[in-house]
Amino acid sequence: MSRLSAPENRKSGLVALKGGEGGRSVGAVKGEVWLVGAGPGDPDLLTVKALRVLQSAEVIVHDGLVSNEILSLAPASAQRIDVAKRKSRHTLAQDEINRLLVALALDGRRVVRLKGGDPFVFGRGGEEIEACRAAGVTCHVVPGVTAVLAACAAAGAPLTHRGLAQSATLVTGHGKAGETPELDWVALARPNHTVAIYMGLSAAAEVSQRLIEAGRAGATPALIVVSASLAGEQRIAATLGTLAQAAEGLSGPAVLIVGEAMALADVSSINVAAQTLLAEAVR
Amino acid sequence: MSRLSAPENRKSGLVALKGGEGGRSVGAVKGEVWLVGAGPGDPDLLTVKALRVLQSAEVIVHDGLVSNEILSLAPASAQRIDVAKRKSRHTLAQDEINRLLVALALDGRRVVRLKGGDPFVFGRGGEEIEACRAAGVTCHVVPGVTAVLAACAAAGAPLTHRGLAQSATLVTGHGKAGETPELDWVALARPNHTVAIYMGLSAAAEVSQRLIEAGRAGATPALIVVSASLAGEQRIAATLGTLAQAAEGLSGPAVLIVGEAMALADVSSINVAAQTLLAEAVR
Repeated sequence: MSRLSAPENRKSGLVALKGGEGGRSVGAVKGEVWLVGAGPGDPDLLTVKALRVLQSAEVIVHDGLVSNEILSLAPASAQRIDVAKRKSRHTLAQDEINRLLVALALDGRRVVRLKGGDPFVFGRGGEEIEACRAAGVTCHVVPGVTAVLAACAAAGAPLTHRGLAQSATLVTGHGKAGETPELDWVALARPNHTVAIYMGLSAAAEVSQRLIEAGRAGATPALIVVSASLAGEQRIAATLGTLAQAAEGLSGPAVLIVGEAMALADVSSINVAAQTLLAEAVR
Repeated sequence: MSRLSAPENRKSGLVALKGGEGGRSVGAVKGEVWLVGAGPGDPDLLTVKALRVLQSAEVIVHDGLVSNEILSLAPASAQRIDVAKRKSRHTLAQDEINRLLVALALDGRRVVRLKGGDPFVFGRGGEEIEACRAAGVTCHVVPGVTAVLAACAAAGAPLTHRGLAQSATLVTGHGKAGETPELDWVALARPNHTVAIYMGLSAAAEVSQRLIEAGRAGATPALIVVSASLAGEQRIAATLGTLAQAAEGLSGPAVLIVGEAMALADVSSINVAAQTLLAEAVR
């Protein structure tokens, strides 16, 4: 395994990006890749480090989930490459993205690979760092605020909570070929445990059915947060049993959260069928 | 349940804190509590929003995990209250902290409750927001970069990874009365699943034993990261079977991570007993 160089100037609290100060000539300047988490969407939820790295980018390779507002924080001179991967509309396949990052870095460019949330939570950042290592390209990682934590913060509902949620599991609603992945439904059905389903809107019906079949109570509180931290944010309370109904008609980046601690959520709307069940579920 | 007011000026990307512009007189200015995630320790991993809220604090109520470097970013005039909760040295019990936050806010102060990582991941932020709601005190939450994501970023090892980790579970090594909590070891032992154990150093032996008894392979790659993102950061590779030995002699804030994807970790040292096993485990 290759060794990453230690982040520069950790003690000073400043990020000094290497190279490129005097222009870019192949050979003189070594390119590198920064895998950067852009957080949930609100530019204020970028880390200070992510903002600084973005402001020094020469090339930005980004997903569709990264907003124009965040992209506008990069220098106007920086090249922007959209490799948006949306359901049933792949602009670039993952191996093409990997090759693109490596090629840009080997060309001496300072590449920022900007991803919604955190690069290592359902972001396929692992595949990109492996590609960089295989090609001898230095790759730094800047962590970010992951979607479920932005959703919990927005709703004021804790991911873990004494007595209600002693652990939390993050899963994705998208498997290979767009199907719901084969998950350990029995494990996810255990009580006093929060389950966060990323990209879960289209999987809401299956998640609900499988968890109930595996023994989780239909009255378990659930929360859907669409566009967490953005102007169009929606927070919808439901229960596990009404999750599919509550997800109907919603679109956009969303996280579904199932678990007893979601009884603490402050929401913008409550799915009507869930109200009676929720009233019983709240302690 | 009380309703949180929507974060101000979301669209502008600026955080405008309410009230207090013209001095603080009880009745004229309403106090409020901000639960703020300080991230893993490096001030550069504060979010822009957390930094701005901190810079407008009148009182800061913080844990021992929050560094002086981060505290120094607040105004010199801001009152600082350390409520450090360390193992077997409770400075303030949780219900005392809850009462303190409420009392300060009711006194009209703008209170920043600063927590390491994210306020809602093993941070007991849920109890604090409940106390605020019960007292009619407005409480805002600013999410943060949680410890395991900083650890993964530092080691270049993804929390989830195609083919190696289709989900991730966050647990804590500290239960009530300092004992290892009763976890669903069988669920945690399933392969292709990352398990992150927060505050796990003292629980390393038990976690290792229980997971192996429950069927997880002793050769499963594991990673210990101490002081992620800080100058004294240590990244130690081990396996599930050698986890206790690898944890010996370590101290400080640490996260243990067990799972196949940890084979991708770039580390500062490898536990000797783990080397042979790891060589087999890496694809």
